[in-house]
Formats: sequence, structure tokens, C-alpha cells
Amino acid sequence: MTARRSSSDLFNRPASAGPNLNDVVKMARVYNFCAGPAALPEPVLRKAQAEMLDYQGRGLSVMEMSHRSDEFIAIAAQAEANLRRLLDIPVHYRVLFMHGGATAQFSAVPLNLLGATGHADYINTGSWSQKAIEEGRRFGRVNVAASSEAEKFTTIPPLAEWRLDATAAYCHYTPNETIGGVEFSFIPDTGAVPLVADMSSTILSRPLDVSRFGVIYAGAQKNIGPAGLTLVIIREDLLERATATIPMVLDYRLTAKNESMYNTPPTYAWYLAGLVFEWLLEQGGLTAIGEVNRRKAEKLYRYLDGSGFYRNPIDPACRSWMNVPMILADAKLDGAFLKGADAAGLLNLKGHRSVGGMRASLYNAVPEAAVDALIDYMSDFARRNG
Amino acid sequence: MTARRSSSDLFNRPASAGPNLNDVVKMARVYNFCAGPAALPEPVLRKAQAEMLDYQGRGLSVMEMSHRSDEFIAIAAQAEANLRRLLDIPVHYRVLFMHGGATAQFSAVPLNLLGATGHADYINTGSWSQKAIEEGRRFGRVNVAASSEAEKFTTIPPLAEWRLDATAAYCHYTPNETIGGVEFSFIPDTGAVPLVADMSSTILSRPLDVSRFGVIYAGAQKNIGPAGLTLVIIREDLLERATATIPMVLDYRLTAKNESMYNTPPTYAWYLAGLVFEWLLEQGGLTAIGEVNRRKAEKLYRYLDGSGFYRNPIDPACRSWMNVPMILADAKLDGAFLKGADAAGLLNLKGHRSVGGMRASLYNAVPEAAVDALIDYMSDFARRNG
Repeated sequence: MTARRSSSDLFNRPASAGPNLNDVVKMARVYNFCAGPAALPEPVLRKAQAEMLDYQGRGLSVMEMSHRSDEFIAIAAQAEANLRRLLDIPVHYRVLFMHGGATAQFSAVPLNLLGATGHADYINTGSWSQKAIEEGRRFGRVNVAASSEAEKFTTIPPLAEWRLDATAAYCHYTPNETIGGVEFSFIPDTGAVPLVADMSSTILSRPLDVSRFGVIYAGAQKNIGPAGLTLVIIREDLLERATATIPMVLDYRLTAKNESMYNTPPTYAWYLAGLVFEWLLEQGGLTAIGEVNRRKAEKLYRYLDGSGFYRNPIDPACRSWMNVPMILADAKLDGAFLKGADAAGLLNLKGHRSVGGMRASLYNAVPEAAVDALIDYMSDFARRNG
Repeated sequence: MTARRSSSDLFNRPASAGPNLNDVVKMARVYNFCAGPAALPEPVLRKAQAEMLDYQGRGLSVMEMSHRSDEFIAIAAQAEANLRRLLDIPVHYRVLFMHGGATAQFSAVPLNLLGATGHADYINTGSWSQKAIEEGRRFGRVNVAASSEAEKFTTIPPLAEWRLDATAAYCHYTPNETIGGVEFSFIPDTGAVPLVADMSSTILSRPLDVSRFGVIYAGAQKNIGPAGLTLVIIREDLLERATATIPMVLDYRLTAKNESMYNTPPTYAWYLAGLVFEWLLEQGGLTAIGEVNRRKAEKLYRYLDGSGFYRNPIDPACRSWMNVPMILADAKLDGAFLKGADAAGLLNLKGHRSVGGMRASLYNAVPEAAVDALIDYMSDFARRNG
């Protein structure tokens, strides 16, 4: 029993040997359930591979291009245009391609937005909310307006109970908690207070009403592309509130004014993100991929709930489509489960140490067949160990 | 007359088509003199291409690996070990793999090092020095201890004339100015004051005595790898001076404590840097590549000086091995020069707008044959237009 898919690949050998067209090596791709850096769509990797040494006949790699060259500017602009199309981003929002991942944004958000107000609301729904809160506290006053800590982050605090401050510079929340596997099924209404969302592990998983947000940010390494790139989508009027001592690389206004090229951006990651956006459009956009993601998640949760062997600890109304924690009946079996999964080509299923058990991340690039293969393996494992 | 080199490549077509071993497309690689993002060694690109979908039989791309996986930790550790070997880095120095490029370091240096002192010395030798100085001024008091601005940055101020402050938190300088093409032929002695160097465009171009420095930093996109990665080499005792409000992604101590994995690092760029380090060791290390670089630069400067048509505006004692500005006898010929160069497969020779004329960047990955081809083209162009 294996999920490895075979295809042929020419280059699966030392580079020093140079290409040899008769040298065909079998390649087996695994199913990768990693929480991030995560699986990328195979057609994207194939295209990047094809263009690695020679981008569209220009005789050089995208990695080797000046960010100010016509070629790269076209790649960058096309990526943004495709993202705008995918998310239907309104014209009064700017798209920034930044360095540093979501962790950089934990600092960038307060440094850019606290302004004269000096305080902000944060919603605490798990590990990543907490990191954002801790970092926010270093730059201003943080009001934790709601928290599910007492429920061990297995649910989302009902909006009616949030103690929002109408004078807050912004309200920050984490629509999907990658570690806990808990997800908002609604966009909170914070009135005139700009809503700021860390969408790292949920962006592009389904359609989204961008106009409800002040700032959306996301590390690339889940649904966008390789690690090192961060996407920021910001309402234009929020660009003017930065503190005087914000480091240049975190400055939204400077970044927007220079089309994300004040300094050299992570060009190759930007290019790959563009390929991912293209692939998503080819899949039918976010409505289509959203349906696939819903099916994948529902299928896995249905199996878990009925298995009598595995369980998911999250309130069914707040279960994540993207990250599914799975607890085995007996934690002593975790090692055997992982070993067998590995052998079956089902990789990176180990849960985060703070939650335990297993976790399957079902990002866009994880195909429905991967979920089927996972369920097959899990059924078999439960039968043998139940 | 063309510098394009032919080799065959399988994948030079749409990814959707899937591999077809009979479909061989000719590929022509150009000579790329870009100042950055710059040329990468072809064997590095070939190896990355070969491993793009399947790293060493693991069934996934390096881009798709968790930064906490055994595979990636091995890649990361090997890269650091090879870098340490190349530069002979002493054990009491830490190597950090960070986000954001040198521009991020313009902020990181003062935020990490100003400490209680609150002031630092900076040497101004051109565009990049000036950017570091401007950013430094936002976080503390900057003393410009020496400047070649009066000489239009065509030389390096003699050390005897520097007005160094023995109480400075550090002394910052730019050993090689990428835009101006001016380079230090010596490492300044700043006594007990830690020396901080932006080595973005000179690191790994020849052997270096790391023990003379407090901090060395470098954006990757010249001699290290793709843009988005920054290398920091820091003397251990300097890790403890950060201000309380330093953003986490810029914090040397936090980065060192977490082996550059507090947050997700730019994993793919790190892997590629590792391949470049491997390639450099295969070339015989920095002594060997330094000899090649010396020959490349000497050959080009000798041609320029003797051409009677082109000139280099820099004090011969301070000429950069890596970035060579070249002024044509008549600026009206610039367009024709560039057009012809492009057609000959000699790319990215346009000088920076602040200097004018041409610029050839001769980083490690630019082979000696590229310099020969450039000189051939230049001779021919001078003959036809002189």
C-alpha cells in the first residue's frame, strides 16, 4: 500500500553529470501534509523546473534577473494582477510583496498602524494569536478583547462576548490557527476599527470579501509559494500611520510607494507565487478550489468522527479546513502510525508538540486523492490496532 | 558574434504538457553582468533543477519541506559548515541566515548594537554607505568619521584621516560599493570598537580575515544565492546589546538562540546558498576563486585603460573587483552599445543612473570567458564607433 505516484524525470542525478537524454530515472512524489513550508502544486514545480536555467528563452534564470528588469517587472505585475483577480481585490487596496514571513508582520502591524492611538484590540484564539499579541505589547498597549484560552483554544469566542474598544487603532485576529486547527466561520464586524487578519494558513483557500478588512497579511509558505515572501493587502488610507522609527523593510508606505521594490524583493519566491496564482485560476479560481477544500475537509472529519479510533478535539462549528489535528485512541501508537504513514508516502503528519497526536494540513496543493489515501491508511491502521 | 552557449534542455515548454523525452529544445545561456540579483553558477542551477520535484529521492521539493524536518536541518547545517570552511570562521562567531536583504540590516545593526552607547561611526564611500547612514540616524547618533563625497566617491578616504570615536558602539563601512565600483584594499583597524561591514557585493570573492570584524552582513543576491536571504556573521559577545523594541525578525540574539529558525527562514534560498558554497569548495575555495576574480578584473581594467575609448572613473588603488563602471567616449553611443551587447548575449551592462555609462559586475558566477567575450565585443564596438 503506497501513495507514491510515479512519473519520469530526467535530472534526478548529480548536476555535474550534465544532461543525458537517455538517462531516465523514476521519480515518486509523496503526499505532503506539512503545515508549512507546505506542498506546492506539481504543475507549478514542473514549470519552475523547466524555466530554471532559461526563462522563456531569455537565457537566464528568474533568480538571476534584476528586480528592475523589464522581464521581472512583468512577472511581478502579472502575479499581482492574477492575485487581484483571484481575490477580487478592490482598487483602493494595495498589494505588497514583502520579506520576513508573518512573524515580521507581528511587528509591522503595530509599527505601521498604532499611530497616535497607541493601543489596539487583539483576539486570542491560539498559538499564533498569542505570538502576535506578545509582539504587539512591545510596541503599544494591547487589549485582549476576547480569548478562548479557557476552552484550550478548541473554539472561537462568540462575537457577542468580545469587549471591543471603539478607539482601538485596529483589531487583530487569526482567522485560522495552524497549530490548533480552529477556524473562524465568520468575518467579525468591528465597525470603524480596521480589521487586521493573519491569514497565513487560510488565504486563497476559498473566496474572501477583502473589503471587510483593513489589512490582510500572510506568510507565503502555505497556500502562496515558498517561505521568505509575505503578502500584505492593505486599504490605502491605512498607509500613513507609521511610527517614525519603523525599520524600512517593515514600512508599508515605503513599500507601497516603491511597488514593493524599495529594496530587492525575494524575486524567485514572488515568481513562484505568480505561478501558484496562475495555477489557481486554471483550477477555476477560489470558488472551485474552495469546493475541493470543503470536500477534502468534510471527508476527513466525517471519517474521524465515525472512526471510533481517532478524534478531533475542536468544536465542530470551528473546525479548520486547512489544518486537522487528529488524536489517536492511544498515544503509544503515535510512533507506529507515523512510521507506517511515512512508508506509505504520507508525509509530515506529526502534530505540533503543544497539541500532540497527528495533524493533516490540507492546503490547496494537497489533492483530494491525498485525503483518500490518508483515510485508507488510517482505516487500515485502526483495523490493525483498534 | 554571440556569447550564447548552447546546451539541451528537456523542459523548455509549458508544464501542462508533462515530460516528453523526445522533445529536446535548444537552450542558450547568456553572460549576465547584472549587479544583483546576479548570475548564479550554472552547475548550481542544474542541480537545483534536477532536485526541484524530488530532493534526493524523498519525493518532495526542498521548498515543500518543513524547516524543522531532519532533511532541511541537514541542508541548513551543511550550508553553514561549508560557509565556515570557506571563510575559516572562528568558533566564537555565529552565522545567522536571516530575511530581508542588506536594507533590513541597515536597521538591524543599530537596533542590535547601539545599546547604551547610542552612537556609532560610519564611513561614507558611496550610495550604499549613505543608505546605511540615513537609516542609522533614525535609531541613534551617527558620526560620519570619513567621507569621499568631495571626491564624488571615486576613492577611499585614507585611514589616517578618519575621525574615529573610541566610545562608538561600532564603526560601519561598506568594503565594496556596488554602484560606484569603489573597493577597500584594506581592513580598517578600529581598535576596540567593533567593525561592522556591509559585504553584500564582495563577500566570498576572495579570502577574508573574519576575526577582524564584529559583524559582517550580506544580502545573498550577488555572491551567495537568490534574493530574500541575508547572511550575518557576528562575534558572539555582540549578541546581547539589542534595544527592547527590536522587531523579532531583526533580533540577532533571538535568531542565534534559535539557530536561525525562530520563524520560518527562507528555506529554498538557504538551500541554494548551500549549493553555491559547495560549488565554491569544488572550485578550490576562496583562494582559487580569488585568483580567478583578480584575473577577470585586471583583464577588464587593463583593456579599459588602454582602449582610448572607454574609461573607468575610479582611483586605480580603489577599483572594485566585482563592479566595474565603464564610461564610453560619447554617452550618445550608450544605447547602441547596450543594444549590440544584448544581441551578443552580454546582458545587464547598463550603469546605475547615478553614475551613468555601463557597469559590468564580475561576481563569482561570471566566468572568465564572459570577460573575454565582453572585451571582444567592446573592442569591436570601439573599432566601429571610435
